[in-house]
Amino acid sequence: MTSVTAASELPLPPTPFKSSIMQIEPQWIDYNGHLNMAYYNVMFDRAIDEMWLQLGIGPAYMKARHCSTFTAECHVRYLREIHLGDPVQVSVFLLGADEKRLHTFEQLRHAEEGWLSATSENLTLHVDMQARKVAPFPPDIRARVTAIVDSYASVPRPEGIGRSVAMPSK
Amino acid sequence: MTSVTAASELPLPPTPFKSSIMQIEPQWIDYNGHLNMAYYNVMFDRAIDEMWLQLGIGPAYMKARHCSTFTAECHVRYLREIHLGDPVQVSVFLLGADEKRLHTFEQLRHAEEGWLSATSENLTLHVDMQARKVAPFPPDIRARVTAIVDSYASVPRPEGIGRSVAMPSK
Repeated sequence: MTSVTAASELPLPPTPFKSSIMQIEPQWIDYNGHLNMAYYNVMFDRAIDEMWLQLGIGPAYMKARHCSTFTAECHVRYLREIHLGDPVQVSVFLLGADEKRLHTFEQLRHAEEGWLSATSENLTLHVDMQARKVAPFPPDIRARVTAIVDSYASVPRPEGIGRSVAMPSK
Repeated sequence: MTSVTAASELPLPPTPFKSSIMQIEPQWIDYNGHLNMAYYNVMFDRAIDEMWLQLGIGPAYMKARHCSTFTAECHVRYLREIHLGDPVQVSVFLLGADEKRLHTFEQLRHAEEGWLSATSENLTLHVDMQARKVAPFPPDIRARVTAIVDSYASVPRPEGIGRSVAMPSK
């Protein structure tokens, strides 16, 4: 056996999960003088990495149990420009899960002023890394994920879930 | 006046527009051993930058006419893993436009083998960079955009447009 912490021994993450405060990197600023649309996703993904540690499905889990997660789908709304020097923090809402998928919604805010810059909605798949195929969560992780989804049940759902890209006039 | 090429003098881009062939950068590979979800967006955005040059709305346009474009919304589907050393090429379909918005759909493929790795659907806004507010396209650009949208009318629409993130069982 390995020394990886059993998922059941980890404290449940807060609701919603809050990432560490992150800084925008200078090479992420584009010719419009603001954070380029592509690099929002780097910060959203780093926030997910932090939350996955608290779910017990981070790199140590992959090493010990040969499973990981792949993003299947991602929808970002860019609501307000953000600039070099603005500290940012991401909140992650775990909206739902089934035996092999996680549905999350993230909010990226100015860490000091609190205003919302962007949201990201994601569908994530649990993957057996030896077969590189989608596979069910093991029972202990499934129980933990369910407990976290249940802890979110009383939290108001943020605005903007379930959108598709469209031009309304069409 | 400036020396920027008038939009009406540029050749219409092919249908769909094809980006240059791009290489995955080593720092974009994550602990799963494949292109990280966030960096697909860097390649999609670089492809859009190339197409915008052919629309006449790139950096020279911003410098000469003080307008640019901001992404409002972006939806990515991750369909097949791609790895370091795989050359990639992006096709861009301009699906629609109105007086201040562009609706695009992109396909990221293995450049030699042709298989589809990911798609990205985007809504983009035309912005007055002095006011930093959404503004109508000037008439020459609007005419050019309309001509390109019209040139796509006979092209079959790719699969996967208009999706939202959801877990079907919910």
